[in-house]
Amino acid sequence: MATVRAVTGLACQAAKLQTRVSQRSARNSQLMRSCTTTMSAEAETAPVLAPVRKRRKIDPMTPPPPASEFPPWEPRPFFRFEILHTSSKSGARVGRLHTPHGVVDTPGFVAVGTNAALKAVDGPWADAEGQQLQFCNTYHLLLHPGADVVEAAGGLHSFMNRQRPLITDSGGFQVFSLAYGTVHEEVNSLKRGSGKSRHKSEHNLVAKVTEEGVTFRSYRDGTKMLLTPESSVLAQKQLGADIIIPLDELPPYHTEPAVLAASLARSHRWMARSLHTHLSDIRQQVMYAVVHGGMSLELRQQSVDYLTSLPFDGFAVGGSLGKNREELFWLLERIMPRLHERGASSKPVHILGIADTESIPKLVTYGADTFDSCYPTRVGRHGSMLTANGPLRVTSGQYKTAFRTPVEGCTCHTCRTHSLAYLHHLVKAKEPLAASLLAIHNLHHMNAMMAGLRQKILADEI
Amino acid sequence: MATVRAVTGLACQAAKLQTRVSQRSARNSQLMRSCTTTMSAEAETAPVLAPVRKRRKIDPMTPPPPASEFPPWEPRPFFRFEILHTSSKSGARVGRLHTPHGVVDTPGFVAVGTNAALKAVDGPWADAEGQQLQFCNTYHLLLHPGADVVEAAGGLHSFMNRQRPLITDSGGFQVFSLAYGTVHEEVNSLKRGSGKSRHKSEHNLVAKVTEEGVTFRSYRDGTKMLLTPESSVLAQKQLGADIIIPLDELPPYHTEPAVLAASLARSHRWMARSLHTHLSDIRQQVMYAVVHGGMSLELRQQSVDYLTSLPFDGFAVGGSLGKNREELFWLLERIMPRLHERGASSKPVHILGIADTESIPKLVTYGADTFDSCYPTRVGRHGSMLTANGPLRVTSGQYKTAFRTPVEGCTCHTCRTHSLAYLHHLVKAKEPLAASLLAIHNLHHMNAMMAGLRQKILADEI
Repeated sequence: MATVRAVTGLACQAAKLQTRVSQRSARNSQLMRSCTTTMSAEAETAPVLAPVRKRRKIDPMTPPPPASEFPPWEPRPFFRFEILHTSSKSGARVGRLHTPHGVVDTPGFVAVGTNAALKAVDGPWADAEGQQLQFCNTYHLLLHPGADVVEAAGGLHSFMNRQRPLITDSGGFQVFSLAYGTVHEEVNSLKRGSGKSRHKSEHNLVAKVTEEGVTFRSYRDGTKMLLTPESSVLAQKQLGADIIIPLDELPPYHTEPAVLAASLARSHRWMARSLHTHLSDIRQQVMYAVVHGGMSLELRQQSVDYLTSLPFDGFAVGGSLGKNREELFWLLERIMPRLHERGASSKPVHILGIADTESIPKLVTYGADTFDSCYPTRVGRHGSMLTANGPLRVTSGQYKTAFRTPVEGCTCHTCRTHSLAYLHHLVKAKEPLAASLLAIHNLHHMNAMMAGLRQKILADEI
Repeated sequence: MATVRAVTGLACQAAKLQTRVSQRSARNSQLMRSCTTTMSAEAETAPVLAPVRKRRKIDPMTPPPPASEFPPWEPRPFFRFEILHTSSKSGARVGRLHTPHGVVDTPGFVAVGTNAALKAVDGPWADAEGQQLQFCNTYHLLLHPGADVVEAAGGLHSFMNRQRPLITDSGGFQVFSLAYGTVHEEVNSLKRGSGKSRHKSEHNLVAKVTEEGVTFRSYRDGTKMLLTPESSVLAQKQLGADIIIPLDELPPYHTEPAVLAASLARSHRWMARSLHTHLSDIRQQVMYAVVHGGMSLELRQQSVDYLTSLPFDGFAVGGSLGKNREELFWLLERIMPRLHERGASSKPVHILGIADTESIPKLVTYGADTFDSCYPTRVGRHGSMLTANGPLRVTSGQYKTAFRTPVEGCTCHTCRTHSLAYLHHLVKAKEPLAASLLAIHNLHHMNAMMAGLRQKILADEI
């Protein structure tokens, strides 16, 4: 049986965090040397994450540590959420996230660059379309090139040469998606009655969940890896994004109430551990808590109440948010006011993984501030351009001779440069350039849409 | 048996070319209307090319028409080849092609954008790297979106929004490549003793060659199409590139001398027909002849002598140019002086399909002016960057932590923006962005290399 491989030295790192801070400069230059000289040979298969310490089995409903175990929240000199206006008509608000890498206007769209790269779009091209905050996925970056490599580069901003704000997740989302599949896959498989939503090979990659953390196999080389709250935070310290996320469990949509309650308790315990690890070495980062509880209002409220009692810098709404848009709205309409009442009124709220053009205008009215999704680049790759009237299917035969601006009034690189007929041709001819051009437009569309929403909120129109 | 489909009206177009010129504006606006309203439904399967008239069988060695059948060559007000300097050390020369869409500095690299798009590189991004002349492939554009669609857009420059010079081929190269395979495939298959270099399915797509032209099947929908010298020129008139190429036959590397001689005679007859068609409606285009004769010096000289006697505006060296670089140099060293003696000394000479970084510096010493290849974008897609010291294999493990400029001193977008370690990561993570970034660098490298060669020629160093 394969054993979980450990990186020498990592097991002691949590206890040594404080001393590390003062020694960072020296260590970084050492790391740079060791990476350049020795990492290349081994890094390809090196597992990154190891247990901090072995925990005994505990009662699944063990409550997480109380707020009294944490210092009170205090403003960070390097991070500030400024609310410019709250609509008189709804909970919608216009604000600014001030981060060490510049400002994010809110409500704002967050583009997902999984592997520290947007799909077929270079950073400067996205910046030119107004992209501010960008998401990178810790899970993928751990598998390649490895958090050590990114740290040796000087962090994600240096590695990908992005001088604007970044956010990373904990890595848990992808691990649990491998285990359970997405809500979409789960609901569809139940409809089909198959009861199986994932390929067997994918199931083999995942995932033993213990109090310690979650064990999974690298899809790249099969290496068995253990992701813990502590190791996720350590990895995110190495990546160095402006905003980081604690490890949480992501139970599927159809989860028994008792199991869901136990999962929530574990997520709370994990997030408390994550916060402890983060607070022992804050650097220039802030941490958002992730509100869980699935479709149970009672558990969601419990989650809000606990997490807002801790000194997190912002909040993300995660876990299963319903199997369709109606359920999403139903849930958020009830949870968001409580989140604001209990402490988030002056802190940013992020919606994890939902940023479709139909959902955002409603979600901002509940006071949600940022929204991430790979949707704009993905639909671009699949041949669609986002417009105010919904997606425009570029492959449609009617556009073969549409020698006009693809989306009238759009000022993106693509619409300024090319006709709809040309884009139609590129997609039909399977030219790889099509993916870039359509994604560039779609990113512009999202950012322009958000700017429009901000204007409407400022005018109290929504 | 499937019949060759014909587009109504096209059969009479050759005779009507002169009248068409004066009626073009009116016709274009009609075409625009008809395309917008009716083309979309049928264009997907519409074959473009039809016989102009049926020719009876002729003796394969029938000589092409003499020069006396053509008007003498005269300078074109819209196109001029200006030779700035000829090296005192070799046949190398520095010049400028003045075209209706701007200047091409020679010796110059010609990027290949098969489907009216460079692979993963947008036109403005290539322009920023100094790309001047660009090649588009008539064969691919005939199959999609169709020459009619491009004409309705206002020609290729409008269709792809490229305001710099363009060149199109006749479409013959791809058709004959389907029939015979590339030299590389052919030589390899003979080495393996298989005698078959192409998949059966590809053989089925091709190709009956008659005096009339060449019949092939569309790889898109199986439609049987006939490409003739006249229809190729008509299609290239619709595409509207600055430089066009007459239809020629491309016999494989291993062709019996007698067969090669007959093929050359046919290519000459085809090119004479092409030139007649072109001269009856010049527009703002020039036509380059294609020198053939395979590896036979006698046939090559015969080809040079005949083609230079006709009023072509430039010359391309095509057909099989040897199975390796030694044979290429051996052949060109002997053919190029004769080409210059017989009439190309003041006309541009293009080398078809050869633009690798090792060949170009030698070929310019023979007085070759432009070179096309899809090599820079292709090796980019396969993970290599061109450098003065040969290709840099970005995937090599040694670059995992190479947090340095990929190619020192390079000023391309990619090298200015990203580290080698980041590019390594993108290629290893299979990010589509890698293809764009590497191709952008490689295009820049080619253009910078050509600029360097021009400097050396001006200084009589080569």
